[in-house]
Amino acid sequence: MAEHTVTFDVTETAVTLPTGALLTEAARLAGVDLQQPCGGQGRCGRCAVQVTSGDLRRRSTLRLSPADVAQGYALACQAVIEQDVAIHVPPQEQLDRHLTTDRLVADMAVPPGYDPAVAQTVRRLHLNLIPPSMDDQTDDWSRLQRALRSQGIESPQISLGLLRRLGRILRQDNWRVTVVVDKASTAGAAAVIIDIRPGHVDLPLHGLAIDIGTTTVTVWLVDLLTGQLIAQAAEYNRQIQRGEDVISRIIYATKNGGEEELQTLVLATLNNLIARACQKAAAGNSASTAAQVTPATIVRATITGNSTMMHLLLSIPADTIRLAPFVTAVNQPPLLNAAEVGLQINPAALVDCLPGVASYVGADISAGVLASGLDDSDQVSLFLDVGTNGETVLGSHEWLVTCACSAGPAFEGAGVLHGMRATRGAIEEVWINGNTYEPALRIIGEGKPRGLCGSGLISLLAELFLTGIIDKGGFINLTLATPRVRQGERGPEYVVAWGAETDSGQDIVITRVDIDNLLRAKAAIYAGFTVLAQSIGFPLEQVGRVLIGGSFGKYINVEKAVQIGLLPDRPWDCFHFLGNTSVAGAYLALIDCRARERIADIAGRMTYVELSADNSFYEAFTSALFLPHTDLDRFPTVAAALTNGIL
Amino acid sequence: MAEHTVTFDVTETAVTLPTGALLTEAARLAGVDLQQPCGGQGRCGRCAVQVTSGDLRRRSTLRLSPADVAQGYALACQAVIEQDVAIHVPPQEQLDRHLTTDRLVADMAVPPGYDPAVAQTVRRLHLNLIPPSMDDQTDDWSRLQRALRSQGIESPQISLGLLRRLGRILRQDNWRVTVVVDKASTAGAAAVIIDIRPGHVDLPLHGLAIDIGTTTVTVWLVDLLTGQLIAQAAEYNRQIQRGEDVISRIIYATKNGGEEELQTLVLATLNNLIARACQKAAAGNSASTAAQVTPATIVRATITGNSTMMHLLLSIPADTIRLAPFVTAVNQPPLLNAAEVGLQINPAALVDCLPGVASYVGADISAGVLASGLDDSDQVSLFLDVGTNGETVLGSHEWLVTCACSAGPAFEGAGVLHGMRATRGAIEEVWINGNTYEPALRIIGEGKPRGLCGSGLISLLAELFLTGIIDKGGFINLTLATPRVRQGERGPEYVVAWGAETDSGQDIVITRVDIDNLLRAKAAIYAGFTVLAQSIGFPLEQVGRVLIGGSFGKYINVEKAVQIGLLPDRPWDCFHFLGNTSVAGAYLALIDCRARERIADIAGRMTYVELSADNSFYEAFTSALFLPHTDLDRFPTVAAALTNGIL
Repeated sequence: MAEHTVTFDVTETAVTLPTGALLTEAARLAGVDLQQPCGGQGRCGRCAVQVTSGDLRRRSTLRLSPADVAQGYALACQAVIEQDVAIHVPPQEQLDRHLTTDRLVADMAVPPGYDPAVAQTVRRLHLNLIPPSMDDQTDDWSRLQRALRSQGIESPQISLGLLRRLGRILRQDNWRVTVVVDKASTAGAAAVIIDIRPGHVDLPLHGLAIDIGTTTVTVWLVDLLTGQLIAQAAEYNRQIQRGEDVISRIIYATKNGGEEELQTLVLATLNNLIARACQKAAAGNSASTAAQVTPATIVRATITGNSTMMHLLLSIPADTIRLAPFVTAVNQPPLLNAAEVGLQINPAALVDCLPGVASYVGADISAGVLASGLDDSDQVSLFLDVGTNGETVLGSHEWLVTCACSAGPAFEGAGVLHGMRATRGAIEEVWINGNTYEPALRIIGEGKPRGLCGSGLISLLAELFLTGIIDKGGFINLTLATPRVRQGERGPEYVVAWGAETDSGQDIVITRVDIDNLLRAKAAIYAGFTVLAQSIGFPLEQVGRVLIGGSFGKYINVEKAVQIGLLPDRPWDCFHFLGNTSVAGAYLALIDCRARERIADIAGRMTYVELSADNSFYEAFTSALFLPHTDLDRFPTVAAALTNGIL
Repeated sequence: MAEHTVTFDVTETAVTLPTGALLTEAARLAGVDLQQPCGGQGRCGRCAVQVTSGDLRRRSTLRLSPADVAQGYALACQAVIEQDVAIHVPPQEQLDRHLTTDRLVADMAVPPGYDPAVAQTVRRLHLNLIPPSMDDQTDDWSRLQRALRSQGIESPQISLGLLRRLGRILRQDNWRVTVVVDKASTAGAAAVIIDIRPGHVDLPLHGLAIDIGTTTVTVWLVDLLTGQLIAQAAEYNRQIQRGEDVISRIIYATKNGGEEELQTLVLATLNNLIARACQKAAAGNSASTAAQVTPATIVRATITGNSTMMHLLLSIPADTIRLAPFVTAVNQPPLLNAAEVGLQINPAALVDCLPGVASYVGADISAGVLASGLDDSDQVSLFLDVGTNGETVLGSHEWLVTCACSAGPAFEGAGVLHGMRATRGAIEEVWINGNTYEPALRIIGEGKPRGLCGSGLISLLAELFLTGIIDKGGFINLTLATPRVRQGERGPEYVVAWGAETDSGQDIVITRVDIDNLLRAKAAIYAGFTVLAQSIGFPLEQVGRVLIGGSFGKYINVEKAVQIGLLPDRPWDCFHFLGNTSVAGAYLALIDCRARERIADIAGRMTYVELSADNSFYEAFTSALFLPHTDLDRFPTVAAALTNGIL
């Protein structure tokens, strides 16, 4: 087969590929990082590049105008190499990997009355072994087991790696050792020896609570001897480059080498966050044991995330998640160790991947329900995790039902022209004057606005609607007497900030297409919980509490979320914004084996309702595609506001 | 530090090393395989090489004559590089790796009444899973567990590797699968999934019984569905190059990189034998399932060997075995899998390393006792494993005591000038005419004699003694009227075969030094069991059976072994030659979990008597350094023979 040379202007090396290879493959070989939020399906247009010499066969030109193609543009993921080519890579928006810390720091106190001796599976033991003699030639491993038995540890497991080092460690400080044992907690599992050190040392013990979100990965570093959260770190999941939602990622994973690449990306994210959390702990607590955090002192990890994220972390094929009948390979992965998973902590540390329920209700929801306390209450509550996927749980301590819908990443700032994550420069709240149509903005951090984050979009949508700039169908009224409403290149749009005021110098706008994406996202979430309630005949009006999880959810303005029909029209004191319930649940499972068992119980008794099999979901979704809803009776306070404000 | 170039005439590349490096290190880098039977301690003289240009600093010249040194000879393990040198490597005896097969094929019938359904921990299950549907979205792994539960398999373990392939295998033949499960047998251990194949296939299942001897490694390939032994293979343990006894190996292992090197050598031996056993099975049984033996169908391995061999296999430091108080790192290694151990079979196959008792009474003895049936009898029996190490067990179903002594490798043909293993060309039996002193020889295989193997040495020693060529102290009578007795370069010697008759064209002799080594070996074994019997006050005369293990032991002529004082003077029908009891015990443990438990029981209740702590051992050893013994009353039949034959 013929070979062709591909040269990228951003790197200096040329790569050689056979006829028929895709340009994205060439980019990967050349180390050129092209964004592929749609997973390489040719739908998002983000991987567009310009051919400056030679040509490519374009399988698809979706998202490219004829003028673009005439100028040599092609979608890298759809461009087939058939001759030597030179490629210009246009400057792409750099992924802003570091979230502003202040938005993500959770307040998590150690639960009152917490007793590590009862709750914690990890124990640190100081042992004095009787040295061997000609009268007692017991082997080293049996000698250690004898000492452990006297501490109530029966038949522990040891890795070959530790067994190889055992003899030297035992003799280094005259048969005095410090042993870290994990009782593993899962019923029937044997205790596992995690570490052995010579002498009686005050070895600090740390654990990790990890939440792998489709968009954001969060790591909490915990002192296992006290249960205290000592450092937090979060950053975007580096897999975002290869797809912004779970479906795009699954598709990417099925391509040659995609599975390994996505695993490598999430492990790079995790190991970087772990290193940062260790640094933060050391910097912030120089006097305490936190200063002694090293990878080796991290002796347990609890991981949560949606089912796709869990599969991709473990490099387990996730393709069946995407195709009917939507089945995962595994909801409860076996207890693994850090070396197997690839986490750069103590290699013998047990890694506990929490149990999920179904393809679209993962461990993040099992853990989130625990953290929300929904399963522990007599009152029937609604739990919403507002993220790229919208998961809903309805229930009490007696029963639990759950469903999921694909909300898409619009509320996380993706799929919206000037959408962005909640980082510095994001517009997080908007007020619009009903007479002048001029907006007032609140920006995260200092400086000029750079785009709109999720809470800003909800706020903007509500204001546009209440001031009549858009109608209940989301159509922009181009007849209004303001330059902020205009026909742009991409159709009707509203100018949120003029170029003179913005960071980039360009206007920040919201387009008709953006509004459609937001309507679809909010309609999916609303339809999800209404159909779920209907399916078991429980009236939404009787829901006592609405518990909202997801780190984004914490900053939603309830009034505005109700006004656009994202949340049900219930009294404000029903709503509880809980932040990242997923990582909070992982934290509770990490520090308390009883909480861990409760998560297993929650996952076991949650009944999953498959919405894609349910015609009523499509009806509910269609009805919810309006502001706030086709049926205004469902939103009496919004109806009243419209009457008072606009009419 | 200065660098020097070392050139070996047997290879074409030169290697560079810093001042102070040993020549053995240079040889290793250059790929020159120098024998080091003493483990590089400068004691055996086998690594002698000749300096042809430049010079080396000789730390020791033991075993070299001043004339040798004048000719440039040096011991590579004691030669320090301080300048550029060129080295001539004299032709060394090639290690004859392939034992003659006929000597090693054991007859091992499946035990009568053997029922794999009861005895075997490995099971092959044909399962029909209910395919998932929108009404049953159970994940793949739970679905498989559900089907296994219906077959009585609860909470099985699965490796991450199999979990990754699970989804595709389940779907390949419409949710019909063949699952190989190992119930693991160890009390409390969970069942482990070893393999999963699409469809209902008559997958053959094989297992390995492995005996790692200091000198010889034996692999038996077993059909686990019937219990039948289908192929055997044996070869020298490639570690021999780095030391002929366990002490030399332990010393070698403590040197830089020695531990990894010895592990690599024994794994190379094992994996080569496994491949050969698979080929033999396929060649010999084309019509049966044995033809389908592949590494993947080998789903369990049971390993036995002395404690040092077990440590070196697992790369666990063995240095404490050598030093008082003589303690192993581990007598019962944990259940491992083939991937961890490095065996080239199904990577998930469980590898069961059988339990040993002490530093010098290893799993080979626990397994040997089982195979000998000693532990199952009312009668008190003596079990001897005659090999490089002489281990002894005395006891019955009520009690068991054991001890070990270092016999050295003389009976395996090493440490004797013309000693060799029991391969083609070895003299295996000798008869000497009492008048002419002319010998008659029996040779293994066809062709001319090449040397003397263990049984030949025993036979020769007895004949030399009974014909008066040597006296009871082993001294050669140089006054006899025969050219076969002479003063050679190495002192007095007896010519067993003239150069004209031999394979090499050189005389085959036995020297005074050889006889000394043989006397020490037999004295150690004899002293071992007599002191063991004394230590518990059990008279040797009351021993009902003498059970002799070790593949070498099978070919001993009892009469002659008694005549030299290696075996006690008991009626011939007391003696039972059992062949390689170690691999036989591993075989029984492999096919029957109850036999496996019996080995654990044997290891648990064997009381180890440490001879090095016992002065009476040295007394007994010294008394046994004569032919047959200083106390002729212990050997009444020998005394009678001497009276009748010679006086």
